Amino acid sequence: MIKVGILGATGYVGAEITRLLSRHREVEIMFLDSRSYASMPYENIYANLKHVVKQTCTSVDLDKDLDDIDLLFCALPHGLSQEAVKKITNKGKKVIDLSADFRLKEKTVYEAWYGVEHKATEELNTAVYGLSEIYSHEIKKANLVANPGCYPTSILLPLYPLLKEKIITTDSFIADCKSGVSGAGRTPSEVNLFSQCNENLRAYGIGVHRHTPEIEQELSLALGKKVIVQFTPHLIPMTRGILSTIYIDNRKALGTEDIKDTLMKYYEKQPFIRILEENAYPQTKAVYGSNYCDIGLKVDERTNNIVIVSAIDNLMKGAAGQAVQNMNLMFDFDETEGLKQVAVWP
Amino acid sequence: MIKVGILGATGYVGAEITRLLSRHREVEIMFLDSRSYASMPYENIYANLKHVVKQTCTSVDLDKDLDDIDLLFCALPHGLSQEAVKKITNKGKKVIDLSADFRLKEKTVYEAWYGVEHKATEELNTAVYGLSEIYSHEIKKANLVANPGCYPTSILLPLYPLLKEKIITTDSFIADCKSGVSGAGRTPSEVNLFSQCNENLRAYGIGVHRHTPEIEQELSLALGKKVIVQFTPHLIPMTRGILSTIYIDNRKALGTEDIKDTLMKYYEKQPFIRILEENAYPQTKAVYGSNYCDIGLKVDERTNNIVIVSAIDNLMKGAAGQAVQNMNLMFDFDETEGLKQVAVWP
Amino acid sequence: MIKVGILGATGYVGAEITRLLSRHREVEIMFLDSRSYASMPYENIYANLKHVVKQTCTSVDLDKDLDDIDLLFCALPHGLSQEAVKKITNKGKKVIDLSADFRLKEKTVYEAWYGVEHKATEELNTAVYGLSEIYSHEIKKANLVANPGCYPTSILLPLYPLLKEKIITTDSFIADCKSGVSGAGRTPSEVNLFSQCNENLRAYGIGVHRHTPEIEQELSLALGKKVIVQFTPHLIPMTRGILSTIYIDNRKALGTEDIKDTLMKYYEKQPFIRILEENAYPQTKAVYGSNYCDIGLKVDERTNNIVIVSAIDNLMKGAAGQAVQNMNLMFDFDETEGLKQVAVWP
Amino acid sequence: MIKVGILGATGYVGAEITRLLSRHREVEIMFLDSRSYASMPYENIYANLKHVVKQTCTSVDLDKDLDDIDLLFCALPHGLSQEAVKKITNKGKKVIDLSADFRLKEKTVYEAWYGVEHKATEELNTAVYGLSEIYSHEIKKANLVANPGCYPTSILLPLYPLLKEKIITTDSFIADCKSGVSGAGRTPSEVNLFSQCNENLRAYGIGVHRHTPEIEQELSLALGKKVIVQFTPHLIPMTRGILSTIYIDNRKALGTEDIKDTLMKYYEKQPFIRILEENAYPQTKAVYGSNYCDIGLKVDERTNNIVIVSAIDNLMKGAAGQAVQNMNLMFDFDETEGLKQVAVWP
Repeated sequence: MIKVGILGATGYVGAEITRLLSRHREVEIMFLDSRSYASMPYENIYANLKHVVKQTCTSVDLDKDLDDIDLLFCALPHGLSQEAVKKITNKGKKVIDLSADFRLKEKTVYEAWYGVEHKATEELNTAVYGLSEIYSHEIKKANLVANPGCYPTSILLPLYPLLKEKIITTDSFIADCKSGVSGAGRTPSEVNLFSQCNENLRAYGIGVHRHTPEIEQELSLALGKKVIVQFTPHLIPMTRGILSTIYIDNRKALGTEDIKDTLMKYYEKQPFIRILEENAYPQTKAVYGSNYCDIGLKVDERTNNIVIVSAIDNLMKGAAGQAVQNMNLMFDFDETEGLKQVAVWP
Repeated sequence: MIKVGILGATGYVGAEITRLLSRHREVEIMFLDSRSYASMPYENIYANLKHVVKQTCTSVDLDKDLDDIDLLFCALPHGLSQEAVKKITNKGKKVIDLSADFRLKEKTVYEAWYGVEHKATEELNTAVYGLSEIYSHEIKKANLVANPGCYPTSILLPLYPLLKEKIITTDSFIADCKSGVSGAGRTPSEVNLFSQCNENLRAYGIGVHRHTPEIEQELSLALGKKVIVQFTPHLIPMTRGILSTIYIDNRKALGTEDIKDTLMKYYEKQPFIRILEENAYPQTKAVYGSNYCDIGLKVDERTNNIVIVSAIDNLMKGAAGQAVQNMNLMFDFDETEGLKQVAVWP
Repeated sequence: MIKVGILGATGYVGAEITRLLSRHREVEIMFLDSRSYASMPYENIYANLKHVVKQTCTSVDLDKDLDDIDLLFCALPHGLSQEAVKKITNKGKKVIDLSADFRLKEKTVYEAWYGVEHKATEELNTAVYGLSEIYSHEIKKANLVANPGCYPTSILLPLYPLLKEKIITTDSFIADCKSGVSGAGRTPSEVNLFSQCNENLRAYGIGVHRHTPEIEQELSLALGKKVIVQFTPHLIPMTRGILSTIYIDNRKALGTEDIKDTLMKYYEKQPFIRILEENAYPQTKAVYGSNYCDIGLKVDERTNNIVIVSAIDNLMKGAAGQAVQNMNLMFDFDETEGLKQVAVWP
Repeated sequence: MIKVGILGATGYVGAEITRLLSRHREVEIMFLDSRSYASMPYENIYANLKHVVKQTCTSVDLDKDLDDIDLLFCALPHGLSQEAVKKITNKGKKVIDLSADFRLKEKTVYEAWYGVEHKATEELNTAVYGLSEIYSHEIKKANLVANPGCYPTSILLPLYPLLKEKIITTDSFIADCKSGVSGAGRTPSEVNLFSQCNENLRAYGIGVHRHTPEIEQELSLALGKKVIVQFTPHLIPMTRGILSTIYIDNRKALGTEDIKDTLMKYYEKQPFIRILEENAYPQTKAVYGSNYCDIGLKVDERTNNIVIVSAIDNLMKGAAGQAVQNMNLMFDFDETEGLKQVAVWP
């Protein structure tokens, strides 16, 4: 039984962590931090958790309240968690940060894409990129885990093993990604209004989305040379889910089985990766509310392309679910504890 | 550990029972019956259950396959489960029927509203109406449980205690109910097509919906005299959820607290009933995929009416969830076993 | 050809007026007023109108810019249009106000329900309630038309004639109303976020919604005595449309035909009212983007109730469409000019 | 004033043609053919057209009923319109066929992708591919117009001019396309059920979709050599709209303006093509129910790719709208007659 605190507990990611921990048998929640909802019972904000989470939000004092916990989840917007991360790591305690602040290894790359100065360079150097299935060894020993972005998770899980195992040696990819609206967060703006998103579909941030350097960093590490990704996010009229369609030039004339076998073998013992049978493709509904990543693929001999499709729940495997999985690794709990929920259908 | 079989396992209700039982620690699934999908791996039909349910559908032989089980779930359309119910009860085994066939105590009422002859009158007499919180005592001892309809559950849970306790003595009600499209089942027809239902809203079956006699039967039993309900179902562009808005003439000038206190007391020890604080009203999202029934209410002194609103997930508390809850009662398991899942939000 | 200006042209109602007028053959738009978007091309805000509306938003000076127009549409929130209404009527020009400020005849009722002082009492006395089919005679001669609320329109169109013709003489009604999210406007808040509304359904403002006195005022005028309405609005996961289900005690044992005939006769020459055949009920999709009000009904002999269902598009017949219809009446244009668009299906 | 008949008038495409023609000032509808709904008033099937289309469906006799018309719209599934097309062209009359039967110039290609024999080879040779903006000259003189598929229209409109003008000379493309569910038609199946599609997203038919040869045929004609397209369709939880995201290797180091200028010039006089300003991308809501095709693009210098995005309404510019546009061309009507409707927003 460990004691954890959540910073930013009332955003969608914080709420998902809270929901998961409320059913986790090894965890006691010590505080649910929220500036805007301090003193409000959590169940008054998230009606789904009525009778389940009985705590009240507090505005945490970083100088005092961190002493009582074993692990901190930071679910704050980028730029706002660096101070907390410094303080908690200085106390020799563990932290999982869900912002972008510790994902990019190069300070300059972070500053170029995010447009703000990075003020915790020392911690940056010790951070482990928390893609659970790929870096589980490092995560187990880490004090600071930088939880991956939702889009990167959906692209890296299918691609990383193929590049790492040198099945695919291409250094440029197209990733056409589609996300539900919850990815835009809970802060109201015209972007995430019902009447703007419903019965609508659009691309955004073509060529400039901030998840790009994160995707390229990890693929480059896998391949051992610089990889370039054309990443196009789209906004879909649904609440949850990311579907990524990845296009690869099939220079080595691989067959569907070559790729599938590599993935099956690489992820053989992983409980949250499901490789679909031939001619079956992932759908987001099958992973809704769960921590699974479903992967399907097609080698198109006519065009000489490989098309890989992956599906995750952006708030689960793309954020809170993976964070809890990382906690399980860090504290040597059963990796699936608190994460056994499957998607409801329909 | 008991052994159960599911008839009609590939409809939406059957699939929800399958999902719940796959995570239930006291149950082993012996067969997943399906005429249309016999021999197909279940996970090929319900992709959410890939790696979780590894069984293959079978077309069950009622004369042989019932011997190996302790409990049968019948998730067949009305009229089709009577034979199976006869056979299983004759073997002295337990059955939970999710059709309408054993809900109405009067054969003639059944035949008038459903337009078919009832061929299992004997079993009808022994059936217990499976509204878990109201009839738990009877359910525990029952061999045949008739699982309630989704709309009736949403109306009876808030109203039954008020009539039973004689807080409300009115004998006529208006129930304006709104349901998601999954209530129309999985058989494709124009009624449940995406393009017909999306961005659309309509009333249907005004005054003639088959759940009417079921609602009136139970309310009449509660009040001790004949109750009439004006029941209007509406189809809402969402997948799951029922919200029922019930209007009651406030003849006795009750206050909000009178009603709320009665419900709170009546359901004090019930794990799945949540009575909301004043001025808070239920929303279906808060119960999505869960077995909760949320209830809120308002006494409108200006109009002298009581307005009660309830929310359930039609496939959970309105069908499969309540069926599993009834199983837990029948076999003396923890009432919440397999049903602890809360709604995801958003 | 008349010259019109629109105050508040970038809200949803203002945008709908702009769209309608852009296709109206008797109207020239002189200004599209917007505080927040001044100097921005209108088509940059509303991409549907690209190449169609080529004007730029301006922040209008009420002391100068009203001189050039024949008619002003005020699509501002309640409380903000009184000054403009005063100025334009003082110039002897016509105005259609889409806020609630001139709908309630009693200043005190307005102030009680809206919680702000009314500062244009003189104008209040001359305002005509713009329910086009009911008050067409008065609207034709009016200088100030108070355009009805969306919910009131959906309730009054079916009920007013029945009370006026003394077919129904009941003085209390239940109106269970369901609205799409666009009714909550374009200002972002948690209430109209996609992820909060999608796959969700809830009641709100039970007994306290501000449209209540407007509904009661008009029904009381129709019946000739005080009418009380239990009005419950619900938020539906769709963008447009209101469906109202109205319950009436059938004291006079009317038949379906009695009611239908009264409505058919009353609305015989009205181009936007469609009375459905028996056993057919309105759906919002059939009126989407159009100015129609569809009405269906059922006399339930079993319960002795009359159930009437109406459907409108809340932004069209419930706001902008009716406003343009009123303009057509005021300037003696063909009543359907600019309003011939039918709903697309699916 | 011409006389037209519609074969297959009750499918979604037939219904859209009917809706458009009901408001077209140069057209009289002679028959609305439907096998399944013969003798039923059309407004009983499509409630949006109540009071607007007063005709009754008929099951047309091809040997008699074609004599009275000037133009036939065939909105039948592929394989079923060949007989009608033969008969009507033999009479020297005009026909617009909305199936795939006359789009592919090579009988063998048709038979390979559609798996059925083509039985109207003679007519195939005279058919004009009805992409209005590209082949307007040929369409004006055609007797048989093969109306393009929805996906091909969304891809060809942005790409054809660039290849034709030799701005882009690449011969392989990736087209990642997203479609609303109405593209799956009105025949109920599991594929287009509300509960399967809502809050879900998936790819389908990767590498094998039948629109592939149609896209490649036209791009090859434009470029003057064989073009290969990797075409991936996705199903989006919305009713209408296609968004296509096209990826092109920017070998010639073009700038955004180079491409935009070519398109602007090529479509200068075209009323239905809207090229968006830089950094603005199309959204399907902006074209909903309209005949527009919106195009936006980005040259990504970092990756050396061109990304083009287009949006159409699949039932309008992707089917019925383009068919009516073609009719306007064939009979020398104003090209926009009957097609002036803009999208509603929101």
